[in-house]
Amino acid sequence: MDATPVWFMRQAGRYMAEYRELRKKHSILELAKTPALACEVTLQPIRRLPIDAAILFADILLPVEPLGLKLRFAPGPSILNPVRTDQDVARLRDKTAAADLGFVYDAVRLIRRELAGKVPLIGFAGAPYTVASYMVEGGPSKNYQRVKAMMTDRPDLWDKLMRKVRQVTAAYLQAQAAAGAQALQLFDSWIGDLSPEQYRRFVRPHSAWVLKEISQCGVPVISFGTGTNGFLEDFAEAGGDVVGVDWRIDLDAARKRLGKRPVQGNLDPVLLFSNKKALKSAVKNVVDRNGGRKGHIFNLGHGILPQTPVENVEAVADWVHEMTSR
Amino acid sequence: MDATPVWFMRQAGRYMAEYRELRKKHSILELAKTPALACEVTLQPIRRLPIDAAILFADILLPVEPLGLKLRFAPGPSILNPVRTDQDVARLRDKTAAADLGFVYDAVRLIRRELAGKVPLIGFAGAPYTVASYMVEGGPSKNYQRVKAMMTDRPDLWDKLMRKVRQVTAAYLQAQAAAGAQALQLFDSWIGDLSPEQYRRFVRPHSAWVLKEISQCGVPVISFGTGTNGFLEDFAEAGGDVVGVDWRIDLDAARKRLGKRPVQGNLDPVLLFSNKKALKSAVKNVVDRNGGRKGHIFNLGHGILPQTPVENVEAVADWVHEMTSR
Repeated sequence: MDATPVWFMRQAGRYMAEYRELRKKHSILELAKTPALACEVTLQPIRRLPIDAAILFADILLPVEPLGLKLRFAPGPSILNPVRTDQDVARLRDKTAAADLGFVYDAVRLIRRELAGKVPLIGFAGAPYTVASYMVEGGPSKNYQRVKAMMTDRPDLWDKLMRKVRQVTAAYLQAQAAAGAQALQLFDSWIGDLSPEQYRRFVRPHSAWVLKEISQCGVPVISFGTGTNGFLEDFAEAGGDVVGVDWRIDLDAARKRLGKRPVQGNLDPVLLFSNKKALKSAVKNVVDRNGGRKGHIFNLGHGILPQTPVENVEAVADWVHEMTSR
Repeated sequence: MDATPVWFMRQAGRYMAEYRELRKKHSILELAKTPALACEVTLQPIRRLPIDAAILFADILLPVEPLGLKLRFAPGPSILNPVRTDQDVARLRDKTAAADLGFVYDAVRLIRRELAGKVPLIGFAGAPYTVASYMVEGGPSKNYQRVKAMMTDRPDLWDKLMRKVRQVTAAYLQAQAAAGAQALQLFDSWIGDLSPEQYRRFVRPHSAWVLKEISQCGVPVISFGTGTNGFLEDFAEAGGDVVGVDWRIDLDAARKRLGKRPVQGNLDPVLLFSNKKALKSAVKNVVDRNGGRKGHIFNLGHGILPQTPVENVEAVADWVHEMTSR
């Protein structure tokens, strides 16, 4: 079959009863840090849904702990000792921190064994900007005031911070690939709040560095960002084999701007709450805008939301396969 | 002088000590509903800053009260009886609701008299989508799940709601112009979360209807939206003499996509917290990207944030004037 491949960001998550059952007994960090549990959660959607890839269950903030920060989920992530000063940045560990994330690499090995070739396994990490933003803000932020202040008023300190984050990010992804991840995705979930100028000056060099480092891993790399519309060409130039876009852009417009680069996306996750007819028409809109071209991985524009009906996720995967089978 | 005109969204607001002083004694709704106070607050930034326009102090949600909804600020706006069902929509009053906002028109008349021609007065309203979103969600929303569900699953109901909202919006703006507003801005602060397809199908017809209705008022109309990057051409086609953009797009890219249409924007409001050197360079970046063309109104990409240093706002206005004087 020649159909467009489908997977879903956050396909291992709260919308599945199996996942909620496990979460009653274990915290997010317990799931992520126990290879057998991370493996189980990673496999849950594979057992249930007709999807074409597994994605490692982990959290983009896992690397901040070995860097020296205190991470809590309550229930959203927060960092108890955020990075604000020269001393804070100087204290962060170097890239050897990635070696402390052995439970992730063990999970990768276990999942590969359990998958037994059924579908490939995607590893991932947060992109330097998104991870550094959390480290500076300490948690989700409305206006990203602190992180933008560091960029603008202390570009030297920002640069030091980003160099540390990018090194651990690359080492972390390289180790996932070495353990058996068959593709890697870099998530830049927060860059959509930057101006194109801020992205180009303060973010792109560091993302490009990571993407270049991991291009040596011998596996395809997906570079995903939300709200990249204002600097999509710049974002694509930073690297990655596939560019992931959110739902705020027409897929045909994205493909046109990206030339021959394969694209991943881009259904609005909120549409998964719609009735079947409206949802199918929205899926068809994405498929049609791809215009029968190859080089499309069907996905959402962001992660599956917690209350999403699982049967709708299943239907979307089926429809994409039907609509694109030749 | 031939310099680029400057004003700031939310220039009457908490970043000014004078405003905070008044807010100790009066709620936001008291300020907005008492013409003498609305006038005072509108004039505060005019007295202090070298800006080229006043903007009426009001809230985009004022029209929801005469429509039949209960509005509270605690401190953010919330609607106690949000609109979810056929009955909720049927119960909403028609466009005669705009007549109940006489305190706004009185404020406009008073401000015009007090300004005595010093600078023009801009009136404004929330665009139908942003106001209807608040009405459905009941307050700020992370994923706009309810409003998108209504669009997708009950397009008939959504259409009825938007027709009611657009009528009161147009009548409200027409009455502001009749009372003396010398320009009008339509604020679509929330549309940036829509896909281009959602915007075109469920929002644009209604915004276009309002923009056409008020084009008869004989005053220039600014159509402002955040996150319009994915459908900027569609947004511009909906109408308005000037298109307002946020900071997520390079101003030269926006101007190129908008052809001869004048543009308003687009400094990131967070940059107003920067040191003077970095801030000046960011202002110069916006001015340079306009490339000396006429038809630019300098503004932020969104409203001034509460803790912004007032001296930075003043410096920005001065710099824009200096940089663009010929």
